[in-house]
Amino acid sequence: MATNHLLADFMHFCQQRVTHALNKVLPDADTSPSRLHAAMRYATLNGGKRIRPILVYASGEAAEVTNENLDAAACAVELIHAYSLVHDDLPAMDDDDLRRNQPTCHKAYDEATAILVGDALQTLALQVLCTGNHLDVPAETRLNMLETLTRAAGSRGMVGGQAMDLAAVGQTLNLTELENLHIHKTGALIRASVKLGTLLNPQLEKTRRQALDHYAKCIGLAFQIQDDILDIEGSTQTLGKTQGKDRQQNKPTYPSLLGLNGAKEKAEELRQAAQDSLTQFDSKADPLRWIADYITLRSY
Amino acid sequence: MATNHLLADFMHFCQQRVTHALNKVLPDADTSPSRLHAAMRYATLNGGKRIRPILVYASGEAAEVTNENLDAAACAVELIHAYSLVHDDLPAMDDDDLRRNQPTCHKAYDEATAILVGDALQTLALQVLCTGNHLDVPAETRLNMLETLTRAAGSRGMVGGQAMDLAAVGQTLNLTELENLHIHKTGALIRASVKLGTLLNPQLEKTRRQALDHYAKCIGLAFQIQDDILDIEGSTQTLGKTQGKDRQQNKPTYPSLLGLNGAKEKAEELRQAAQDSLTQFDSKADPLRWIADYITLRSY
Repeated sequence: MATNHLLADFMHFCQQRVTHALNKVLPDADTSPSRLHAAMRYATLNGGKRIRPILVYASGEAAEVTNENLDAAACAVELIHAYSLVHDDLPAMDDDDLRRNQPTCHKAYDEATAILVGDALQTLALQVLCTGNHLDVPAETRLNMLETLTRAAGSRGMVGGQAMDLAAVGQTLNLTELENLHIHKTGALIRASVKLGTLLNPQLEKTRRQALDHYAKCIGLAFQIQDDILDIEGSTQTLGKTQGKDRQQNKPTYPSLLGLNGAKEKAEELRQAAQDSLTQFDSKADPLRWIADYITLRSY
Repeated sequence: MATNHLLADFMHFCQQRVTHALNKVLPDADTSPSRLHAAMRYATLNGGKRIRPILVYASGEAAEVTNENLDAAACAVELIHAYSLVHDDLPAMDDDDLRRNQPTCHKAYDEATAILVGDALQTLALQVLCTGNHLDVPAETRLNMLETLTRAAGSRGMVGGQAMDLAAVGQTLNLTELENLHIHKTGALIRASVKLGTLLNPQLEKTRRQALDHYAKCIGLAFQIQDDILDIEGSTQTLGKTQGKDRQQNKPTYPSLLGLNGAKEKAEELRQAAQDSLTQFDSKADPLRWIADYITLRSY
């Protein structure tokens, strides 16, 4: 329980920090074109969990990077995530009306605006890494971060995973295929979040770098399995999005392949593997440890 | 007439060169997810005019940059342009069925795929500048290029212009407002194309850099005015897209504000201003000179 309290404090600190930073990098709602900028702020500053920025700060702490140097990366991953949600919710995609207990961007504004909001949030994510407040960071490191994020976000990463997800509706996937889908759809950006945190310390030992990458792969998959479990067990109100949606759309899920208990066991195995990968780190990796527990124990 | 022949050769050379480069940076159509990758290739390798890459090569030639160092920038601006067309053609945006005499991406594939194609093409554009074959280019220069392109593409550039365009349907704009719209919607990326070509020579004198930027602003606007003129005078077959679309949608255009002859005079003034800005350059700027003439004389 003590751990949970520390995690709650850490998450709250990161959420405040990234929200403040996002507020600064997003154009003001009265900057022309104001409807677009208002909608970009609506889609981003809406109280999301900020898991990806939290991972940036947590892995940065394990890698002994200052928070000041992590803000741009934290914004960048959240902006990529926010853009993907706006496009994912569109009628031609998942057709969702509710996100984080509020109307989705195309419902609050309109479809055309939502398409442009996603487009502009993606551009902004990458622009932030070019121009971000990285006073101590050499250009090579920033390029490395940009390359990492574009690989994770693109057609062989997150967007590729969304395409696989579309193709999977109504299909029977085996466990390997389902895992491949999620490694792309949600895993790639989670893994990039952890990697961005560590790239800012070019002196970090290779074994530590590899250990953190393994950690990220484990929690990325665990996160998705828990999402699938919550799609069955959670309520729409707690989730802040329409519950049972995956089953309605006949999408393959871990519970559908492994049963609910099998899915829970798999999530627990991954949680343990994530913890095991952190043994060479001291207490600076504690936030990462708390997050691994949180991901499989969360109820939303 | 001699000039036209040289321009045709130059354009053909650049078109071949950028198509070859795009072919290499786009994932193969049999790389998973294959439908997405096939659609990305469909939307990009479809025989567009490649004006923006041609401007990269032409400004690079004026700035004495080798073609090898220009390929990544040429790909990047074309990928941004291709993504913007795919999203612009969607039913929620301009709802166009025809592009370059072929079914638009969402018609040939489906809407969800077209949304993801646009998303992934944007990511790829920026990834190419991170990883492109810039052996002689310092990281600072590449970051500079990435910053230039993200500024031009984002909510205060191209996407902002598209949002202004949506807001302008059925509205009465004055000339300043219409110009502001086009400076963003098409001008920003054309200006960035010329700038990217010059950024690769950090030794280029400031007066030359400014002259080329002025050139780019003039031809960017001239290009749009000519597009408006062609929307009235061109045929659907020659344009490769639905003709008269702007008038159908009651969008403000230069001919609607200035009359057809007024619009033609304005385009001619801008052509002359673009030529005047090149006086300090020798024959290495000839391709830029030919392009300025071409833009206002083209019939598609």
